[in-house]
Amino acid sequence: MTTGRLEAFSDGVLAIIITIMVLEVKVPHGSDLHALRPVVPVFLSYLLSFVYVGIYWNNHHHLFHATKETSGGVMWANLALLFCLSLIPVTTAWVGDNSEAPWPAALYGVLLLLCGFAYWVLERTIIAHEGTRSELARAVGRRIKERVSIVGYAVGIALAFIHPWLAQLAYAGVALAWIVPDRRIEAVLRAG
Amino acid sequence: MTTGRLEAFSDGVLAIIITIMVLEVKVPHGSDLHALRPVVPVFLSYLLSFVYVGIYWNNHHHLFHATKETSGGVMWANLALLFCLSLIPVTTAWVGDNSEAPWPAALYGVLLLLCGFAYWVLERTIIAHEGTRSELARAVGRRIKERVSIVGYAVGIALAFIHPWLAQLAYAGVALAWIVPDRRIEAVLRAG
Amino acid sequence: MTTGRLEAFSDGVLAIIITIMVLEVKVPHGSDLHALRPVVPVFLSYLLSFVYVGIYWNNHHHLFHATKETSGGVMWANLALLFCLSLIPVTTAWVGDNSEAPWPAALYGVLLLLCGFAYWVLERTIIAHEGTRSELARAVGRRIKERVSIVGYAVGIALAFIHPWLAQLAYAGVALAWIVPDRRIEAVLRAG
Amino acid sequence: MTTGRLEAFSDGVLAIIITIMVLEVKVPHGSDLHALRPVVPVFLSYLLSFVYVGIYWNNHHHLFHATKETSGGVMWANLALLFCLSLIPVTTAWVGDNSEAPWPAALYGVLLLLCGFAYWVLERTIIAHEGTRSELARAVGRRIKERVSIVGYAVGIALAFIHPWLAQLAYAGVALAWIVPDRRIEAVLRAG
Repeated sequence: MTTGRLEAFSDGVLAIIITIMVLEVKVPHGSDLHALRPVVPVFLSYLLSFVYVGIYWNNHHHLFHATKETSGGVMWANLALLFCLSLIPVTTAWVGDNSEAPWPAALYGVLLLLCGFAYWVLERTIIAHEGTRSELARAVGRRIKERVSIVGYAVGIALAFIHPWLAQLAYAGVALAWIVPDRRIEAVLRAG
Repeated sequence: MTTGRLEAFSDGVLAIIITIMVLEVKVPHGSDLHALRPVVPVFLSYLLSFVYVGIYWNNHHHLFHATKETSGGVMWANLALLFCLSLIPVTTAWVGDNSEAPWPAALYGVLLLLCGFAYWVLERTIIAHEGTRSELARAVGRRIKERVSIVGYAVGIALAFIHPWLAQLAYAGVALAWIVPDRRIEAVLRAG
Repeated sequence: MTTGRLEAFSDGVLAIIITIMVLEVKVPHGSDLHALRPVVPVFLSYLLSFVYVGIYWNNHHHLFHATKETSGGVMWANLALLFCLSLIPVTTAWVGDNSEAPWPAALYGVLLLLCGFAYWVLERTIIAHEGTRSELARAVGRRIKERVSIVGYAVGIALAFIHPWLAQLAYAGVALAWIVPDRRIEAVLRAG
Repeated sequence: MTTGRLEAFSDGVLAIIITIMVLEVKVPHGSDLHALRPVVPVFLSYLLSFVYVGIYWNNHHHLFHATKETSGGVMWANLALLFCLSLIPVTTAWVGDNSEAPWPAALYGVLLLLCGFAYWVLERTIIAHEGTRSELARAVGRRIKERVSIVGYAVGIALAFIHPWLAQLAYAGVALAWIVPDRRIEAVLRAG
């Protein structure tokens, strides 16, 4: 069974998740520039989540580009990832509404960890189905960025209880590491 | 007429249904962990419905994988199935808001029965169009899981009036039977 | 330029329109069967609109099946049709909230007329681009069903001011004429 | 890496953006024609934004029609454009709710400028990846319409502080320039 329809369905779900979040950016009450001020933290939460869903779409795209066929297990691992990602909009809205509180910022980090774990399970499931000599198994490599991300999320969760904005900075840092093209990072790490 | 666009349209509708439900998971009022408690039953209802829509997408995928071409009848049978599935989010929200009441839990079971019936009609319509010697007609087989599901839904509807959570357990059990790969179940049933 | 992406985009928009309407079916207040009663007219409005969007998707599918390539004009005519169809959910909700009032029922009929007109413009634009000897131009034929529909909508709009439910019956009758497979209707008309 | 899935994802996001706006057109309170009056400015804002998203989809379609392959940079430039476009529904709703206020109308123009800038960055990124001798680089040409649009947006932003409806007229004028087929405009400009 080919991956075409699984990719199309995932694209649909990810497209909805990424755009549903904008529904949480409420229309400002009032008609002047001051009315925009309470929207700013919601907007920043939305921007970060948009980038994260973008990163997952990007990686999902690469993952299935290197995948030849699907199985029942791959489908369910993919649905589990989509489920975790579908919780991002409501968690983002909770963070946006309570930008000075520690728990929403910490839970956001836990959700990011969960999404990362679900992605790792999906990757493992595909490799288990395609074999360790497959194109994907070789492409995955040493997974330095994944390990750095876990540390980043954990640091963010801890920082949330000092100040929630520090947690957001940690999450934004991890996101930045994924946006920067892979080759450069790898070159930096090799030089290091 | 090929099935490509029918599959793409169904993927779109199913992707929206599965992600629309998360809009029902309201942003918690309050900024600490206690604020999450009233969200828990809504979240569990959402999880179960996510799994059910996932099962239907999975089966829909397999169904049209074995289908060569469509007709007007197949299109309308497909739309009837999508209509039944599109009622899952609002019913899920009703269950989540009234997790201790019998009627929402019972109606959820009736809706699952209705979706199962619509799926069966779609399958029959395709086989009627493609002929009883088609790949699909042979693949459908003895339909043991379908019969067990109907019993499971009926038991769930009855249990709803004892305690709604027992109904949810029955529905979750049916869902589990569909997630576990077919071959193993069939092997178990043959051995039994 | 091929029609692939125009069809994919239209499928996306139509899938969203058809599922967005279910958001208008509000979660019932209360946990017993009586709580479902005020939902009934909203549900019936939703069912009728679901069928209409289904009919348009079906016809759109057939239309572009017979179309070889697109132009700027075809794209804008298609967007105009999608715009008209995108007004169905809010009009449906207005009808559902005011099921005993004449104006919503009449406006619903005006919108159906508008959608029919936009579809006709799209058909004309494609034929103008592909030539009157194209497959599509021959397939369109005498357009008996289209003419009957216009009469049905007009009768419905007039009936709305006697009783809004009579208008809904007229619109439902037109919908039924489109669901029934073409060949049978044509055979009936030829025999008549 | 081919552009297929990037186009499918973008189509999904654009389809959601264009239909999400209709959710902002609230169901009128009341059941007669007078109830429609407050909906009129919201409806006009929606119409203009629908046309703008339609223009971007149209141009996006042409852009990737002339693009052979994607890179990480192209993906992120595309996501940046989608992010800007995803802000159109909430800004449209703000304009619709405050149709007599200058700031919403001005901000709408700033957003249009931002979307135009994001589109230009995407175009540059693709050309940088494909080479200045690529089909796309030659197709882009002198970019007269883009320059006229920037002037139009700037004039609109300034006019917003005289009267917001003048701003909307300026934006509508720019939109009109993009709907009219290219060749005619170019012919007019050459003759001029």
